[in-house]
Amino acid sequence: MSVNGTTHSYLIAPNPDGGRLTRSVTGTDQNGAQIDLNVVEERPLTIYLNAQEIVTAMTIGDYPEYLALGFLRNQGMLQNGEDILRVDYDEELETVVVRTSSKTTFEDKLAKKTRTSGCAVGTVFGDMMEGLEGVKLPATPVRTSDLYALAAQINTTPSLYLSAGAIHGTVLCQGNRPLVYMEDVGRHNAVDKIAGWMLSEGVSAEDKILYTTGRLTSEMVIKCAQMGIPVLASRSGFTAWGVEIAQQVGLTLIGRMRGQRFVCLAGEDRLIRDADPSKVAEEPRKSGRKGSET
Amino acid sequence: MSVNGTTHSYLIAPNPDGGRLTRSVTGTDQNGAQIDLNVVEERPLTIYLNAQEIVTAMTIGDYPEYLALGFLRNQGMLQNGEDILRVDYDEELETVVVRTSSKTTFEDKLAKKTRTSGCAVGTVFGDMMEGLEGVKLPATPVRTSDLYALAAQINTTPSLYLSAGAIHGTVLCQGNRPLVYMEDVGRHNAVDKIAGWMLSEGVSAEDKILYTTGRLTSEMVIKCAQMGIPVLASRSGFTAWGVEIAQQVGLTLIGRMRGQRFVCLAGEDRLIRDADPSKVAEEPRKSGRKGSET
Repeated sequence: MSVNGTTHSYLIAPNPDGGRLTRSVTGTDQNGAQIDLNVVEERPLTIYLNAQEIVTAMTIGDYPEYLALGFLRNQGMLQNGEDILRVDYDEELETVVVRTSSKTTFEDKLAKKTRTSGCAVGTVFGDMMEGLEGVKLPATPVRTSDLYALAAQINTTPSLYLSAGAIHGTVLCQGNRPLVYMEDVGRHNAVDKIAGWMLSEGVSAEDKILYTTGRLTSEMVIKCAQMGIPVLASRSGFTAWGVEIAQQVGLTLIGRMRGQRFVCLAGEDRLIRDADPSKVAEEPRKSGRKGSET
Repeated sequence: MSVNGTTHSYLIAPNPDGGRLTRSVTGTDQNGAQIDLNVVEERPLTIYLNAQEIVTAMTIGDYPEYLALGFLRNQGMLQNGEDILRVDYDEELETVVVRTSSKTTFEDKLAKKTRTSGCAVGTVFGDMMEGLEGVKLPATPVRTSDLYALAAQINTTPSLYLSAGAIHGTVLCQGNRPLVYMEDVGRHNAVDKIAGWMLSEGVSAEDKILYTTGRLTSEMVIKCAQMGIPVLASRSGFTAWGVEIAQQVGLTLIGRMRGQRFVCLAGEDRLIRDADPSKVAEEPRKSGRKGSET
């Protein structure tokens, strides 16, 4: 797994010139003139837990091992203490197999639930909510000066978003430093890749901030809480259930963060308001972020 | 199922003042001042096909019957000719049951595949691609003047997007007329609700255009092709696989449609370029659409 650490102080930064992640496609513009457009890739990746096929995800295709680990972790199929023997990625078969030392109870659970419900989608969702009952996020304070500093750095980091568009970004941060910036066609994949990196590297969650370009839906809030990260911030808006879950688990939820502005709809008590918003630079009109991808 | 036809000439238009679809949430802004924000709802809806539980979708909650019908149709679990006896929505239980006159082969298929693959997500995906092999979309021509007229009308239609944000819109159109404008937290739900409406009303697809605020991913292209609609247009960008599938099934794929500009990456032959782009009004800087939701 390659690490691109040249931009800012990232441990992993986007790799927009990586080649394999985008493709040039020829088409026509509004005047009928031929144009070549740089378009992000989207590939199926089938994730196995030992002998059990779990899901086929549509992904841009970087960091398949982290995606598989993070997906299984965020679905509650891998626990933090679980002994992971190997993670095998087969590029040709488009599969990742995560092997654990003993058959996990989660494989039985999945098989059983799948038989009764007919489809794991609803089941997995149910499990995720179940797992949240015991979640108590740490009271780590967050400086608004750090949030502004993070947003400014992230928005100017070279990324697939800025070079090709049609992609989501999620960034794991600590204090005013963005650490790991993952992109993917689905925002849940970008978060899962971060979860996989954290699990793989044994990184603690209680002093981290998760920043995302995507909406603060229930799915995003649940994943962030499952990962034990106490703060979730976004450029985009909220859903009512996302807010409700954040309030329930004590997660600080910040949305619509653009230039000087932001809105906090849960976990206000964690905020240290040490920045004067009127002194924060507004985003340039041509920030490249304003038509954020959907 | 209520029909709101007051805006423009829509058969179904968004209902931003409908009450049940948004909720006022209290929080703080960047200055610590209390603010009340109008936030879209997000509710679980469990879809059954006869006695078989199929999926739990996260939805804004309007038109649950159309969502269930359209989801099952777009997954290939309901054929066009199938006899649908009843669609029962239970608001309290958050369930929709679609009842067909005979047990469908798709229930057996689902049960079988689910047992072998462990999760229907990958299976359903595989089925969708299978279904595409036979798809041949009609050669219906499309005027660029109609595309510009549609975008202008849709972008100024009162919607949950404009009043609360954090939501996707998809619009079924014919010529220069937008017919059915559905919104939902997931863009796949908005498309499925349109598919459900078409199935329910027996509406033909070959002369229609589908307009979406979301990205042109493989999922969106597959759904559009499954529905038999030959043209898919969007404000947002492309993925490479979305383009590839569109080329394969002969779908006209238009993206990045903002003001005068658009890009066509598949099905160019269907376009009649009867509009002079330089005479099309650019979008106002404060269109409300520029920070489109993610």
